[in-house]
Amino acid sequence: MGGEQQVTAAGNEISASFLAAQKRSDAVAKKLDARPGDFTMLTGDRPTGRLHLGHYFGSLKSRVELQNQGVHTNIVIADYQVITDRDSTEHIQENVLNMVLDYMAAGIDPTKTMIFTHSAVPAENQLMLPFLSLVTEAELHRNPTVKSEMEASGHALTGLLLTYPVHQACDILFCKANVVPIGKDNLPHVEITRTIARRFNERYALKNPVFPEPAAILSDAPEIPGLDGRKMSKSYGNSIMLGASAEETAKLIKKSPTDSERRITFDTVGRPQVSALLTTAGLVTGRDPAQIAEEIGDAGAGALKAYVTKSVNDFLAPHRERRAELARDMDSVRDVLAEGNKRANAIAEETLDQVRSAMGMAY
Amino acid sequence: MGGEQQVTAAGNEISASFLAAQKRSDAVAKKLDARPGDFTMLTGDRPTGRLHLGHYFGSLKSRVELQNQGVHTNIVIADYQVITDRDSTEHIQENVLNMVLDYMAAGIDPTKTMIFTHSAVPAENQLMLPFLSLVTEAELHRNPTVKSEMEASGHALTGLLLTYPVHQACDILFCKANVVPIGKDNLPHVEITRTIARRFNERYALKNPVFPEPAAILSDAPEIPGLDGRKMSKSYGNSIMLGASAEETAKLIKKSPTDSERRITFDTVGRPQVSALLTTAGLVTGRDPAQIAEEIGDAGAGALKAYVTKSVNDFLAPHRERRAELARDMDSVRDVLAEGNKRANAIAEETLDQVRSAMGMAY
Repeated sequence: MGGEQQVTAAGNEISASFLAAQKRSDAVAKKLDARPGDFTMLTGDRPTGRLHLGHYFGSLKSRVELQNQGVHTNIVIADYQVITDRDSTEHIQENVLNMVLDYMAAGIDPTKTMIFTHSAVPAENQLMLPFLSLVTEAELHRNPTVKSEMEASGHALTGLLLTYPVHQACDILFCKANVVPIGKDNLPHVEITRTIARRFNERYALKNPVFPEPAAILSDAPEIPGLDGRKMSKSYGNSIMLGASAEETAKLIKKSPTDSERRITFDTVGRPQVSALLTTAGLVTGRDPAQIAEEIGDAGAGALKAYVTKSVNDFLAPHRERRAELARDMDSVRDVLAEGNKRANAIAEETLDQVRSAMGMAY
Repeated sequence: MGGEQQVTAAGNEISASFLAAQKRSDAVAKKLDARPGDFTMLTGDRPTGRLHLGHYFGSLKSRVELQNQGVHTNIVIADYQVITDRDSTEHIQENVLNMVLDYMAAGIDPTKTMIFTHSAVPAENQLMLPFLSLVTEAELHRNPTVKSEMEASGHALTGLLLTYPVHQACDILFCKANVVPIGKDNLPHVEITRTIARRFNERYALKNPVFPEPAAILSDAPEIPGLDGRKMSKSYGNSIMLGASAEETAKLIKKSPTDSERRITFDTVGRPQVSALLTTAGLVTGRDPAQIAEEIGDAGAGALKAYVTKSVNDFLAPHRERRAELARDMDSVRDVLAEGNKRANAIAEETLDQVRSAMGMAY
């Protein structure tokens, strides 16, 4: 899944299971290009804040492409994931509705893509019960992403953080998604989903499998640094929000740190701050950051920032215009979500019925 | 809750929290006698087999009394608990329907008592998500009942066994039960439910609490031994099923072991097998087991068994007759469950709406 989860740090070791997943990802990507209508995708975001450029290039863009290719696309706004590592749901309604605005402004078409909040889909959440019986506590503990998220949050390990990969399996499996686009840090979640699907089928539905074993599609999007060269983070204030105004964006870029060297060069290791600005400009213009650096040359950080500001604002202008247009009728935005939730409930209820039947729990 | 959970062994240490719970239990029992209509009770069973005399005297009897006193009574057939420590749901449908038969034969009136299976109530199960966020993994691990159940099962600790006390909190809180009759081994489950209710209210509903903090009513029913003096257990084949025939019961009692001493005396420590038979006869006749022993005296084990057989079969005859009568129309039994599930869903949806509102998750 995309969203905040994607930027979590994790070990870089190339394991056998990673190589297997990479291979599966390549094979699936090829099939998907040939027959997109055979594929159902689930991806999502945690509504802990607003979406920024990192979300756009890291996931939103490719979701829109998959949607337009003809893949059955589903986006979960993972509102229960907000409380995996925090004690409050402050601003959640605002965050959720702004997420829908950004999706639609970016090109997500709610008649093609099902957008839903998992808190609105009881039959999906019920899958937690049978699914929790299919994994051991030891397996839950082995998940490296859960560990690093707990450490990053500085919060005690809640029951929900420990078990949220199982809840992600519910998100993925209730709509029988067979592809899940993710960054490689989230590979363990897809692995546990595959395990759960396999064990459910083996244990309760051998003759007539209920669930597909979904494949991860590993994102090849580069990791996008924050404006200051550090990881993008709300607390660092180093990300350009899709919904910010041109003025806010200009201000943010203006105050982003550079270094004392006048000549602009692209050197991600030696000059992370300057390079982050160049990377940002490169992404939004589709140009090579090194070439932009050369063009600016001795004109210095001021000229670089002016270039970045203009190119980011030019790039985001149509998005922001569509967004503002949509925001004039928030009732329609709520309707989009209500409609998505309704569809999700219909699908979840059907899947839950199959699960109950397979388990002999139809009385 | 009653059922199999109740007979799990646990430490006997009298802790401060036990004494507090005992005090609360006594106070609530007094209030309940005075104003039964102010109380809502939740109790239940795990449908892993048929109900036996131990269930009858340990919980069924008092459920019927509470129902007839005017308490709002609710019984969950905890079908997801079947898979906390096993990999199969074999015979679950049969077990569930037989449970409803035994409830009704024992005097549970479905127009007064809501009987439901939690697998049929998605909105109840969804409460798992917010509730799991309110407890830490360390708290889940500290639960002594979970530990002893895992050890007894010889099964790896599943995610569901680790978290099922949270699911019991869902069972109890969705219908806002404020009393839970339990054996003292299950006190930790009610404690975690109280914690969850308190934390939810503090975190999300300070001004307008959503959940009551339920009190345990500690059962004063004696622990009923199996016919051979050991713990009642399906694998020992030492329990008298409520739904067995008089012949099956006679056979079971006949083959139950005694000792070589002819004279019958009541000595639970020195003569557990003979005493178990006497205890059983005492329960069903309402007589003192020592007096029964004296009456039989030198007539020996044969005479004792004849007495036990007759008194058990006499006691169970009306239950079995009502049960057979009900079993002639299994469609009606299914309707009772369907009706209970429907009521449970209505209540759960209302509670879930309150939970979503309190958390700001109404979009």
